[in-house]
Amino acid sequence: MRFLIPLISSSITSGHYRITSRLLSAHLTKPQLSTLHPFFNYQPPSMAASEESLRKALAEKQSAVEAHGNAVRALKAAKATKQEIDAAIEALNSLKLEKSSIEKQLQAAVSGSDGDGALSREAFRQAAVNTLERRLFYIPSFKIYRGFAGLYDYGPPGCAVKSNVLAFWRQHFVLEENMLEVDCPCVTPEVVLKASGHVDKFTDLMVKDEKTGTCYRADHLLKDFCNEKLKKDLTISAEKAAELKHVLATLDDLSAEALGAKIKEYGITAPDTKNPLSDPYPFNLMFQTSIGPSGLSPGYMRPETAQGIFVNFKDLYYYNGNKLPFAAAQIGQAFRNEISPRQGLLRVREFTLAEIEHFVDPEDKSHPKYSQVVDLEFLMFPRDEQMSGQSAKKIRLGDAVSKGTVNNETLGYFIGRVYLFLTRLGIDKDRLRFRQHLANEMAHYAADCWDAEIECSYGWIECVGIADRSAYDLCAHSDKSGVPLVAAEKFSEPREVEKLVIAPVKKELGLAFKGSQKNVVEALEAMNEKEALEMKAALESKGEVEFYVCTLGKNVPIKKNMVSISKEKKKEHQRVFTPSVIEPSFGIGRIIYCLFEHSFYTRPSKAGDEQLNVFRFPPLVAPIKCTVFPLVQNQQYEDIAKVISKSLTTAGMSHKIDITGTSIGKRYARTDELGVPFAITVDSTKDVTIRERDSKLQVRVGVEEAALVVKSVTDGLRTWEDVWEKYPHHTSGSADD
Amino acid sequence: MRFLIPLISSSITSGHYRITSRLLSAHLTKPQLSTLHPFFNYQPPSMAASEESLRKALAEKQSAVEAHGNAVRALKAAKATKQEIDAAIEALNSLKLEKSSIEKQLQAAVSGSDGDGALSREAFRQAAVNTLERRLFYIPSFKIYRGFAGLYDYGPPGCAVKSNVLAFWRQHFVLEENMLEVDCPCVTPEVVLKASGHVDKFTDLMVKDEKTGTCYRADHLLKDFCNEKLKKDLTISAEKAAELKHVLATLDDLSAEALGAKIKEYGITAPDTKNPLSDPYPFNLMFQTSIGPSGLSPGYMRPETAQGIFVNFKDLYYYNGNKLPFAAAQIGQAFRNEISPRQGLLRVREFTLAEIEHFVDPEDKSHPKYSQVVDLEFLMFPRDEQMSGQSAKKIRLGDAVSKGTVNNETLGYFIGRVYLFLTRLGIDKDRLRFRQHLANEMAHYAADCWDAEIECSYGWIECVGIADRSAYDLCAHSDKSGVPLVAAEKFSEPREVEKLVIAPVKKELGLAFKGSQKNVVEALEAMNEKEALEMKAALESKGEVEFYVCTLGKNVPIKKNMVSISKEKKKEHQRVFTPSVIEPSFGIGRIIYCLFEHSFYTRPSKAGDEQLNVFRFPPLVAPIKCTVFPLVQNQQYEDIAKVISKSLTTAGMSHKIDITGTSIGKRYARTDELGVPFAITVDSTKDVTIRERDSKLQVRVGVEEAALVVKSVTDGLRTWEDVWEKYPHHTSGSADD
Repeated sequence: MRFLIPLISSSITSGHYRITSRLLSAHLTKPQLSTLHPFFNYQPPSMAASEESLRKALAEKQSAVEAHGNAVRALKAAKATKQEIDAAIEALNSLKLEKSSIEKQLQAAVSGSDGDGALSREAFRQAAVNTLERRLFYIPSFKIYRGFAGLYDYGPPGCAVKSNVLAFWRQHFVLEENMLEVDCPCVTPEVVLKASGHVDKFTDLMVKDEKTGTCYRADHLLKDFCNEKLKKDLTISAEKAAELKHVLATLDDLSAEALGAKIKEYGITAPDTKNPLSDPYPFNLMFQTSIGPSGLSPGYMRPETAQGIFVNFKDLYYYNGNKLPFAAAQIGQAFRNEISPRQGLLRVREFTLAEIEHFVDPEDKSHPKYSQVVDLEFLMFPRDEQMSGQSAKKIRLGDAVSKGTVNNETLGYFIGRVYLFLTRLGIDKDRLRFRQHLANEMAHYAADCWDAEIECSYGWIECVGIADRSAYDLCAHSDKSGVPLVAAEKFSEPREVEKLVIAPVKKELGLAFKGSQKNVVEALEAMNEKEALEMKAALESKGEVEFYVCTLGKNVPIKKNMVSISKEKKKEHQRVFTPSVIEPSFGIGRIIYCLFEHSFYTRPSKAGDEQLNVFRFPPLVAPIKCTVFPLVQNQQYEDIAKVISKSLTTAGMSHKIDITGTSIGKRYARTDELGVPFAITVDSTKDVTIRERDSKLQVRVGVEEAALVVKSVTDGLRTWEDVWEKYPHHTSGSADD
Repeated sequence: MRFLIPLISSSITSGHYRITSRLLSAHLTKPQLSTLHPFFNYQPPSMAASEESLRKALAEKQSAVEAHGNAVRALKAAKATKQEIDAAIEALNSLKLEKSSIEKQLQAAVSGSDGDGALSREAFRQAAVNTLERRLFYIPSFKIYRGFAGLYDYGPPGCAVKSNVLAFWRQHFVLEENMLEVDCPCVTPEVVLKASGHVDKFTDLMVKDEKTGTCYRADHLLKDFCNEKLKKDLTISAEKAAELKHVLATLDDLSAEALGAKIKEYGITAPDTKNPLSDPYPFNLMFQTSIGPSGLSPGYMRPETAQGIFVNFKDLYYYNGNKLPFAAAQIGQAFRNEISPRQGLLRVREFTLAEIEHFVDPEDKSHPKYSQVVDLEFLMFPRDEQMSGQSAKKIRLGDAVSKGTVNNETLGYFIGRVYLFLTRLGIDKDRLRFRQHLANEMAHYAADCWDAEIECSYGWIECVGIADRSAYDLCAHSDKSGVPLVAAEKFSEPREVEKLVIAPVKKELGLAFKGSQKNVVEALEAMNEKEALEMKAALESKGEVEFYVCTLGKNVPIKKNMVSISKEKKKEHQRVFTPSVIEPSFGIGRIIYCLFEHSFYTRPSKAGDEQLNVFRFPPLVAPIKCTVFPLVQNQQYEDIAKVISKSLTTAGMSHKIDITGTSIGKRYARTDELGVPFAITVDSTKDVTIRERDSKLQVRVGVEEAALVVKSVTDGLRTWEDVWEKYPHHTSGSADD
């Protein structure tokens, strides 16, 4: 899940997150979106409700724009620094952009032009995001200072969901697979990221407003222009439309020059000022800093966690008893200084990654537990189906591996484990697919790559990358550090192998090349097997060849008597090789955001007068497992509630007591909005009522048993259905109102 | 746990981590160290063993120095960049320093001069650290690139210990206290850290080698000089010795000027080159970076996690139903660009903090659960005892609070909870004390501060700071952001309050001051209650006063008819106030390092021919809970081992299977070194043997029961003693050999 160094243009090389947008524009046609995966699994908010929520959002945004406009004027009047004013203007501009986006949605909603589902997607997202922000699942960071694009806090329920997701990740991967977890610093010296290629290649193409200096992502501007033209300008010819669509489809393959040429050709200017734009140039996405006080040791905030594992390979291999295969894992923060972050939680400047590096003998990529996933069946989208315009389809994993669609067993095993991980979290399996990288998306060294993509209101989002990166990373660090990062297979008995021997005849070479002899000797010895055998053949047939010595920068004539090239048989006791690495890499924030959307639905209140929001989180990830409330304000009931609370704490179950005098229906609605799966209502001193969030079904359970019943379902030891069967039902119809 | 802005000199203001060294030099006399807290709780390694380990370490270090010397020469020969050569030299120098430190220990060991326990401390540390590094509890980061000072990775067992410590922290604090956990980015815009004071004050004093530019911490050089002189130069007079001791005691209070003067006076030069040094100047310890592509938004890697909570106060207060008290918590990375990191894991450039901000009404600092900790008794070191040269003593927490030694109940409650947290992790209660800050260590706004200090081979180390910071932080962010961060207490019925009213008479002021009228009006309105009442009294007695208007920079005469100052009675419905914050702040890495030392001991092997290393981690924090091994290599036994392994995985228990053919004694020794509390040995097809690490006692348990027995003890549901009583004992004496 890193950039692909040599083959792909720079706008892709900055990371897998780029690849998603390419896919959206290039390979996904609208019919697929709307027919294959109907967007709402649950009840969609009614049109009137969404229109209303848009009106509210617009009014809020309008007053925010006014307030910020005043603030900008005040700053100017107070002669604030250019920096402060620019920041305020930037904030104002982004507010204005948001406002105009809402206006557009509202326009569409009022005119009822919801042909392609875009509106219902937008309305759905708005409803979900409003709830998420209001209940502090997340918060724009440093909000009291007007916030900073691309930085978000998780508030209490969001933070709890994140903890739960990471705890399950540890259980499902690290513990179940006996992985070696490590924890490395975010601050990373330049030499490490130079070796990995990030210092030179981890870039996006940027253009600047030539007058104000404001920066934009070049591909975003071109994409916006094309989309705008296609949607708004109904007068363009069919040919022109086809051209624009082609640009969109090939956007991520365009070089800086080609992008610049298109921007010029279409007369694209800075969106805010209409000023001319600079030529596109690469901007490195790493946050740079300096380590130590001297200013002489540049460093960066790591753009991924994987490098910390690679540089420790030698120690980890030793820790594992010098045996392959083994996997190392790391959970931690990663940083990418995005040029202009969009899409809320999906493209941020700091995020949590969870990465696995599974080291394996390149000659044996079988996996001992492969049989456990072989019969899983889920949506896969192989390369060929993408190229021929088909859609993703359900494929049995074992078939995909045996047919060679998936390169090897270990890669297949991890694809299966990722599927299980995501669906157990609560990701809808019908909106989850595994998409294979196209040939031009992969680096030359990669054997095969698959992305777990989750469909949300933004389209199909890459959330997990699963790549067979061959020996690339270990070789890169071996080369730069001089420390061999290799493994050895000891033979049970010595094996006879043929070895190439290149023996330069120094006397002859000295006579012929005098002072340059050393360069020629080194160049001869550095030949690989193919070059050496070609030279041997040529010398045998022609007696002399021209040979390029790079340290001399020229060809020299090599004669038959100057070098002996032969193959010799040797006994070897072991085979030394660089392991391949198979890398499943999880964007935790993206998974969580998609989980939020997949879990969100609305349902009418009992009175039917409003839509209530619900997150249907499985107990595993629910931020709070249970609420406890006395039915009425009453000391006896409150005491019982406290006793139950204490048992829940002892059992390690996060919960909340609500002793406000609000109606029980309102209290249920409040906890549904936080995705709390169970509520214990104290309505007698002997038995209490347990209510399940989604079915709203209620059972009667003894006071002492209540915490344990909830715990057993939450821990997955039994299901709600088991509970429903075992305990008497609560039949009063009034509880939920 | 942050710097104290106005009162304390800059070398302290950079954070609580500074305060430790002050304490070590100022308040801890040797008799206390050696008599009150005997350093080894367990068997110390024999002198011969430590001497041997030092000889080995020295030989290793010597060859490392030679290898690095060669590397430096090679770099110079290859005309590498200055930066590369400097980095290599820096690495070489630090290696040389390490080597000379080992030489010193060895010298002392050979001559037997172990008067003050320093040697046994050093030898103990060396033995512990060797084991920790060899078993990958931690690893110097980027080791294959020669490492970088102050950056460490946690390898697999260290990472597991850290996960366990953090999970327990969440259970003990967040869950038990229903805290609101948040998760904010590390990248922080300048405006936030400007408000908090870090941009201006978070500094250490630095000096530079005037020729090479190498940087040193000024106070470290002075400290080293004084210590060296006191230890080595036996010819100095008693007066001189007293002076040097005074310098050491007041080191952290010295201003840049005073430090510079002392360095000049003593003729201190750069340790590596003997070149002259620059004057000391403040170096900001934050890693600086730039947010976004424009280069116009400076940012820093946060030096602590607390600010993320403060800026969210308003939302969190709302989330808590606008009720006080409540606590918010955050676990995350923090960054400090130390000038020259020392002391291994104790002073690093990136570390994990866990911080709690408990917001409370300043007029009511009681705590509902205070009674639960009131009877705890542990080592406390109040201010008065420190000043009068006494030592820490056991005090009942309730007494400390009721006598006013601890400022308030809430502060006392958290001190008690921290005590429980640390001792349950496995910190030795006899090497844990709570030390109150002296008056000059605290900021003027702080009500009271206590540090949980843990004694390890480096002395008493501050690991948790517990401070009542009053309203300082919320006020600072209210001021800078313009967003009021306040709470309100609604009165059940309106209350009559007296309010000061200052009414400038604009007409008279205009006549008297013309164009300056506005400045005078603003200055009058800005008076606080005391100033206004003084003016009122003066005007009534004298009719005229001189009044300083800061925006004019001069005094102006104010007459009685120019301003009316009065007190009026008003009805108020609520009281609006800035909450106080009580902040327990945990340096997780420091706690873990001290836990490593407190858990480490050695014991002779059965044959008595070597010392074996053991970490006596409680099951709660042990990196691996259990190992499973077949007594002999045998398919049947291996199959049973796998079945048990599967049950352990299902139960969420980290474990390890060892099917190597090594002797059972060696396998026990290996797992003891990782601190694994239980081993299950498969020695029949029906029953297996469970061995406890520290007692080496063994019981016989049925195959199906084995995983559950281990789980129940690990989860704290029963003790090993319960198990020992219930199950038949294994009596074969040969298992451990």
